Amino acid sequence: MSGNSFGNLFRLSTFGESHGAAIGGIIDGCPAGLELNLEEIQRDLDRRKPGQSRITTQRKESDEVKFLSGLFEGKTTGTPIGFVIFNENQKSKDYSHIKDAYRPSHADYTYDQKYGNRDYRGGGRSSARETACRVVAGSIAQQLLALEGVNIFAFVSRVKDIVLPISFRDVDPQMIDNNPVRCPHKETADAMFNFIDEVRKSGNTVGGAITCVAQGVPVGWGEPVFDKLHADLAKAMLSINAVKGFEYGSGFEGSRMLGTEHNDKFVQTEDGIQTATNHSGGIQGGISNGSDINMNIAFKPVATIMQAQHSIDKDGKRVEIAGKGRHDPCVLPRAVPIVEAMARLVLADHFLRSKSSRV
Amino acid sequence: MSGNSFGNLFRLSTFGESHGAAIGGIIDGCPAGLELNLEEIQRDLDRRKPGQSRITTQRKESDEVKFLSGLFEGKTTGTPIGFVIFNENQKSKDYSHIKDAYRPSHADYTYDQKYGNRDYRGGGRSSARETACRVVAGSIAQQLLALEGVNIFAFVSRVKDIVLPISFRDVDPQMIDNNPVRCPHKETADAMFNFIDEVRKSGNTVGGAITCVAQGVPVGWGEPVFDKLHADLAKAMLSINAVKGFEYGSGFEGSRMLGTEHNDKFVQTEDGIQTATNHSGGIQGGISNGSDINMNIAFKPVATIMQAQHSIDKDGKRVEIAGKGRHDPCVLPRAVPIVEAMARLVLADHFLRSKSSRV
Amino acid sequence: MSGNSFGNLFRLSTFGESHGAAIGGIIDGCPAGLELNLEEIQRDLDRRKPGQSRITTQRKESDEVKFLSGLFEGKTTGTPIGFVIFNENQKSKDYSHIKDAYRPSHADYTYDQKYGNRDYRGGGRSSARETACRVVAGSIAQQLLALEGVNIFAFVSRVKDIVLPISFRDVDPQMIDNNPVRCPHKETADAMFNFIDEVRKSGNTVGGAITCVAQGVPVGWGEPVFDKLHADLAKAMLSINAVKGFEYGSGFEGSRMLGTEHNDKFVQTEDGIQTATNHSGGIQGGISNGSDINMNIAFKPVATIMQAQHSIDKDGKRVEIAGKGRHDPCVLPRAVPIVEAMARLVLADHFLRSKSSRV
Amino acid sequence: MSGNSFGNLFRLSTFGESHGAAIGGIIDGCPAGLELNLEEIQRDLDRRKPGQSRITTQRKESDEVKFLSGLFEGKTTGTPIGFVIFNENQKSKDYSHIKDAYRPSHADYTYDQKYGNRDYRGGGRSSARETACRVVAGSIAQQLLALEGVNIFAFVSRVKDIVLPISFRDVDPQMIDNNPVRCPHKETADAMFNFIDEVRKSGNTVGGAITCVAQGVPVGWGEPVFDKLHADLAKAMLSINAVKGFEYGSGFEGSRMLGTEHNDKFVQTEDGIQTATNHSGGIQGGISNGSDINMNIAFKPVATIMQAQHSIDKDGKRVEIAGKGRHDPCVLPRAVPIVEAMARLVLADHFLRSKSSRV
Repeated sequence: MSGNSFGNLFRLSTFGESHGAAIGGIIDGCPAGLELNLEEIQRDLDRRKPGQSRITTQRKESDEVKFLSGLFEGKTTGTPIGFVIFNENQKSKDYSHIKDAYRPSHADYTYDQKYGNRDYRGGGRSSARETACRVVAGSIAQQLLALEGVNIFAFVSRVKDIVLPISFRDVDPQMIDNNPVRCPHKETADAMFNFIDEVRKSGNTVGGAITCVAQGVPVGWGEPVFDKLHADLAKAMLSINAVKGFEYGSGFEGSRMLGTEHNDKFVQTEDGIQTATNHSGGIQGGISNGSDINMNIAFKPVATIMQAQHSIDKDGKRVEIAGKGRHDPCVLPRAVPIVEAMARLVLADHFLRSKSSRV
Repeated sequence: MSGNSFGNLFRLSTFGESHGAAIGGIIDGCPAGLELNLEEIQRDLDRRKPGQSRITTQRKESDEVKFLSGLFEGKTTGTPIGFVIFNENQKSKDYSHIKDAYRPSHADYTYDQKYGNRDYRGGGRSSARETACRVVAGSIAQQLLALEGVNIFAFVSRVKDIVLPISFRDVDPQMIDNNPVRCPHKETADAMFNFIDEVRKSGNTVGGAITCVAQGVPVGWGEPVFDKLHADLAKAMLSINAVKGFEYGSGFEGSRMLGTEHNDKFVQTEDGIQTATNHSGGIQGGISNGSDINMNIAFKPVATIMQAQHSIDKDGKRVEIAGKGRHDPCVLPRAVPIVEAMARLVLADHFLRSKSSRV
Repeated sequence: MSGNSFGNLFRLSTFGESHGAAIGGIIDGCPAGLELNLEEIQRDLDRRKPGQSRITTQRKESDEVKFLSGLFEGKTTGTPIGFVIFNENQKSKDYSHIKDAYRPSHADYTYDQKYGNRDYRGGGRSSARETACRVVAGSIAQQLLALEGVNIFAFVSRVKDIVLPISFRDVDPQMIDNNPVRCPHKETADAMFNFIDEVRKSGNTVGGAITCVAQGVPVGWGEPVFDKLHADLAKAMLSINAVKGFEYGSGFEGSRMLGTEHNDKFVQTEDGIQTATNHSGGIQGGISNGSDINMNIAFKPVATIMQAQHSIDKDGKRVEIAGKGRHDPCVLPRAVPIVEAMARLVLADHFLRSKSSRV
Repeated sequence: MSGNSFGNLFRLSTFGESHGAAIGGIIDGCPAGLELNLEEIQRDLDRRKPGQSRITTQRKESDEVKFLSGLFEGKTTGTPIGFVIFNENQKSKDYSHIKDAYRPSHADYTYDQKYGNRDYRGGGRSSARETACRVVAGSIAQQLLALEGVNIFAFVSRVKDIVLPISFRDVDPQMIDNNPVRCPHKETADAMFNFIDEVRKSGNTVGGAITCVAQGVPVGWGEPVFDKLHADLAKAMLSINAVKGFEYGSGFEGSRMLGTEHNDKFVQTEDGIQTATNHSGGIQGGISNGSDINMNIAFKPVATIMQAQHSIDKDGKRVEIAGKGRHDPCVLPRAVPIVEAMARLVLADHFLRSKSSRV
């Protein structure tokens, strides 16, 4: 009940603080006989790791995952997959100045109040470092989903007010990793890059949005009431550090429409039953309908800024703190693989759950 | 794993189809010794029931809840609270025309594909009638939360493009139920009412947004990683029929800010540590920080419209269907108590979970 | 977490006190498309109900189950199956004498201490009346299991020191219900009946054992570590009122053997791989191996006796109490369908869980 | 749902095969602020490790636990406690002869059938090596329980037909570890040791029973229906390798009693309400009543014997196999800390669960 596990049948449990010995996790419920491509997992991890360009943090972490169990002769055995990523290149001293101070819009204060003590080095458990474990599990989930024909990708669709000018339908997934922002549209990516770099130089940070798309999801995944497919996706996304909002299909914009505009008409096509439009975002009544599932996730600007800020310490005394060390001016480029991972975990779980729908 | 239960320690499980014998549920984990005000529960239910004004469905359902267990001499006993709401005034014949047809943007098609059969009368399990059970449980949750000083309310903050012009901070909760729209601002409420009524007359439907606020939540509720307080709230809200999006605190707007604008400075006040602004929406690192928790929930326009629509049937044949019976032109006024209920369920669960945080 | 639900994928949640309005439950996760024989469910319930012979309680309860949801045109729909059994023929006055007194070896004292209050009428939630809900769910589970070729039956194998003289392998399931004791061996059943009747006349009660057998379980059900098939069966059985012990396969007797005696040799037969002996009780490493699963369950004598007993009341004052009303001198005959039900619930759950074992 | 986790609020998840890189686990839900004695944890582990005397396996494993997270400055932080025990001194070649053969009464056959492949080295996941993780978690659970005044210990009470002649009430826990058998009675321990050693020399194995006692458990732990305290204990014990049976309180013997003999009379004492006898085993209606909780657990003889046995291989061909390597002639001495660990996990979980019983 402490919320360090995610999923029901395909289940990830994680542990680890940013400046402890290691982070890691257990993936339980992955079916036996899945041939795992370990290079692909590491590749996904590398997309999340620090130091990829000058608009991400310059920390040097190799983020190398070591699998400890659950694999035999290249295949999953059906037993839990244990893994660790040892922490390296820690500069715990970078954090001694905030040992007793509460950084604005961080979790320092709430952790202290909840637990009575905390590992203050680098945010400890509240650090986004924990999400590396999600990427490992999500990558395995994707390899399972691939057997069902499912493909999931995400990209940066907005940085502050710079918006990707094309629909997710027109995005070429191959374009996403062509640039350090992970925006699949060259001009927009360039503009975003320059803007983030400017923000970085001013010691500031900036937010934006990521769009995630799941293609090829079979009809019938998702449960109809509390565990609607999009409800589980919403929780998955909101559990990522810095996320402030979620919408799927027509989203907030859809709430400005009339029923006659919004309804997706069913049509019979050569590929079977489909809908003429897809305001439903590929999900109806919480269950996938075979169309693309699309969602937008809003990220706030990173709380750690390279400017002096006033705050208070444990004793309520006024202190001045400034971010030290190596931080991201914009979390979006590195969050893309995390968003993908969470979507994959949700879908792998609902894939397994769907196996019991009928006699 | 079929997703008909919600919550961990304070847990609601529901059953029932809109046109079966009854709907109902079990509330498990409510602590013993809670003096229950049954009138208050019925009052909350009455706010959700059909037929409250001419801008809601004219179905006549008394929605009377009967408690079958878990109460003794006016108090909870710690054993599960079983309850039923018998279905009345069913006009199942109203649905015979859609027995084999798939209504646009409804769950007919996905249910059929998932389960191979379905109770097509009135949407069956996919009907929002199921949410009456949530209101019962949410009302009990609120009575538990009241002992901790927590107060939760929701209101309609937008109908299509008609927006409540004041901040949630300036809303007087007493104003919410003064009008049939449940918008706490007379002029706006009137405009919304007239617009919905117009939409109704044209046989159309319209969407909008509800804002929900939780006041008095103690510091320290919520779990830090996957079960962040706002992640559970997001799932709760997205599990409500017709919801397309969720945001909390600064939300999507916050993702257009710079870090310097967005960060909430800690200040020492007479009431203890607080933040000068509240872009965090009362939650930092997934844990409540004592400030107001606020969130917006986007609802699509109701899918059942009173106009003819083309669709297809089970065999892929083209059919024409039109909504019959008694439907809501706008779901928002009746969704207010449902939103409140879901927020209450999440908070009651996290209240109980918080009891194990420390030795 | 309040322990009123059982199972993971095939899940029963129950509510209800013996003298409240009703008992009932929700069966969640039953796959869609199962044609339900409702008469069979009622027949199973009737085997548990009071008043079947003079050696069971003479209470008159019709124990008629009403299904409220989850069925449509005779088949399960995949949505939760809600059901109630209304309480009748309650003689709550029979219990006013124990309102403040703690009956020996009952749950009065522990409930009071745990919850601070309790529904003292007829044991409230601690009454075995709750098990009627298990029989309903178990009967549905059996109908699901039957499609997989699984058959589960139980019988009384010992009353105090009167022991069924034949192995479970030689039991003819048709013989079980030929006599009111539910012992599949005429002479033994007669001896048991006479002994129980004697005990009854003396106002006393007596314990014994039930043996349960599951035939036709496919190889591969059960999970290898904490949720071993026999571990879940043990919990299931120990959750039944008055159960004090559980053993499977060779059981306690097997712990008096040497390895050379106990090991089950694998042999290749016309029907595939089997074992020459079955000390393993059909389960190896927590997973079914295709042989018969057999287990013994020990029941203590019923705590309510028709003789005066000294006890104390809430205030620690000495009181004298004697069982009033209508009670069972021996719980075994009526516990047979309950044991069967619990075994069925465990196996149905593991059947559904086994669907995700492999890609 | 793959059964690699145990507990609800205090929850252990484990991973690892006997001959993989490591075994390990995550303990989630341990409250913050618990000062951990790491030496005590290692001491508990050492009681389980191989090579303690000539009547246990001669494998040399240091079984050193490394904690990776969840601790800061000597105290638990409320975040998950990740730990690993690296595998050493593996002699995987010892197992090449059984790669395709099914060892009698082992899990080789059922794993192969369930998963389609398995790590055959040393039993892989089905090896009792996994229980080292339980001992780590159980030791932490005990440190939490100690704050509540709970003390749990276990001992060998029977080896085949050699029975400890004294009641658990008369056992001095200090005597348990005085001898390699872990039987708290010198003469009996000597007889057991000699017998086991004889069995070992003949290449055979032998079973027996362990008794476990929990003292000082407060009144009110345990949930009344499916999660009765003894039901969870039964599952916990049956989840240990080689366990065939469980009984608590009067157990199987109690099922041979009359109600007048079995009932525990309540008496008012200086220490509050107690029972004159304790056939109930410290639990009534699934809830602890403050008396000692006692239970017996039956273990079969170890399946690996040092004698030639006939069996079959994957293709159904007859093969002859004999145990190679270093195995236990009797599992009981090393199982004592495992039994203790499982009891501690159950009680720590129910301790945390009990916090929500009342408003």
